[in-house]
Amino acid sequence: MSGTVPLRSPRARILLHAGGDSTSAAADIAEHLGPCRNAVFLPYALHDHDAYVASAQEQRDGPLGIQLRGLHTFPSPVKAIASADAIVVGGGNSFRLVAALHRLNLVEPIRAAVARDVPYYGGSAGANVACPTIRTTNDMPIVQPPSLSALGLVPFQINPHYVDPLPPELQVGETRELRLLQFLEENDVPVIGLREGSWLRIRGETAELRGGSGALLFRRGRDTETLRPGADVSHLMAVEPRFDSPEEST
Amino acid sequence: MSGTVPLRSPRARILLHAGGDSTSAAADIAEHLGPCRNAVFLPYALHDHDAYVASAQEQRDGPLGIQLRGLHTFPSPVKAIASADAIVVGGGNSFRLVAALHRLNLVEPIRAAVARDVPYYGGSAGANVACPTIRTTNDMPIVQPPSLSALGLVPFQINPHYVDPLPPELQVGETRELRLLQFLEENDVPVIGLREGSWLRIRGETAELRGGSGALLFRRGRDTETLRPGADVSHLMAVEPRFDSPEEST
Repeated sequence: MSGTVPLRSPRARILLHAGGDSTSAAADIAEHLGPCRNAVFLPYALHDHDAYVASAQEQRDGPLGIQLRGLHTFPSPVKAIASADAIVVGGGNSFRLVAALHRLNLVEPIRAAVARDVPYYGGSAGANVACPTIRTTNDMPIVQPPSLSALGLVPFQINPHYVDPLPPELQVGETRELRLLQFLEENDVPVIGLREGSWLRIRGETAELRGGSGALLFRRGRDTETLRPGADVSHLMAVEPRFDSPEEST
Repeated sequence: MSGTVPLRSPRARILLHAGGDSTSAAADIAEHLGPCRNAVFLPYALHDHDAYVASAQEQRDGPLGIQLRGLHTFPSPVKAIASADAIVVGGGNSFRLVAALHRLNLVEPIRAAVARDVPYYGGSAGANVACPTIRTTNDMPIVQPPSLSALGLVPFQINPHYVDPLPPELQVGETRELRLLQFLEENDVPVIGLREGSWLRIRGETAELRGGSGALLFRRGRDTETLRPGADVSHLMAVEPRFDSPEEST
């Protein structure tokens, strides 16, 4: 079982936010989406789609001045993606979101749009589904998607809302770091632990870590690497992800 | 897509621990497993099975004096379950664990053993897989199981390591409570949020909350209920779980 084959388009324009407050990303988001007039919003990560679009619209009316229309309001979501000039994917529960992408047959249409040069903006769950799989989500598997494979807009995995270990007296269960090291036991795929206040800006084969809070890079067999704000992570756009390692013992 | 049909055996003997330190459960565990001489241990939730069995054996040598043999060391795990006089399932990653249960065709043999009266002990991930599904696990989906359906030894869901919301300055991402309320948006199945230091003792159709830390009971359309130590939760053994609610809007 593997993830979606990475897209690798020289024309791709992608912004992936860690989630939480995105105020500090406003200038980058405006530059990314500002000129668009037919942006569609995917509200599938939350239960109440109309309410979610209304609340997203409210936020966007402020700094961005961009109109968003909920993809669920179109007679054909597939056709709506084909004619959209921007794709915005909201956060919430990644399992619910990826289940909708599969159920509505949206994976290939979204990949085709991004390959063409339609900008993609995803925050939190919207960043999870931009990866080959949602295997590094923090979310609870409240529904069963037919597959954990996702959009594969980038060839690596992202863990949004990355948190450093808490003091022992507050830590319950595994640290995020341990969870990601367990992911690497099973899969040979780099993971960027993206702290809130960080985001990735991708243009074709180049990728840059933006925002002020930095990130961590986890790779099998290597020490965890600290990524500082502004780090060039373009080398990760060339990796070959390998899921379900043959080393798994049963 | 639904969960495994609940077992409902008058002879079932099941102990499900929230995870974390199980010292306070030692007397109940000894009473549950003490007389057993052919206990098998399922180490599939962690990557290194031999090391996990060794470490579990070390703990059990202390208060319990019970020998455990790793199920992975038997030529036929299915036959080993059939001749075991106790089944002990260790914690770790629930996705990895349930994937192994399906891959090794262990679901029906374990259900048959428990129906017969073989005691089952599961901590953390071992408690998750005793439920109809693992949809209320806290774990990261590092592997893709063929199904999130699990053993169905009880008809309700458990959220192990339940944590109350942190102060806002420490809370990153959704609270556990919000995650479970999102589960109830999609599924009409009661969930026991089991705090560390709590466990459930099930005998046939009776179920009791044991330990000192209590639990919360989440049900669709009802206020969250506080369960105090010693609470009789036998009424939950009679529920009819409904997964993937028809109310899901798409």
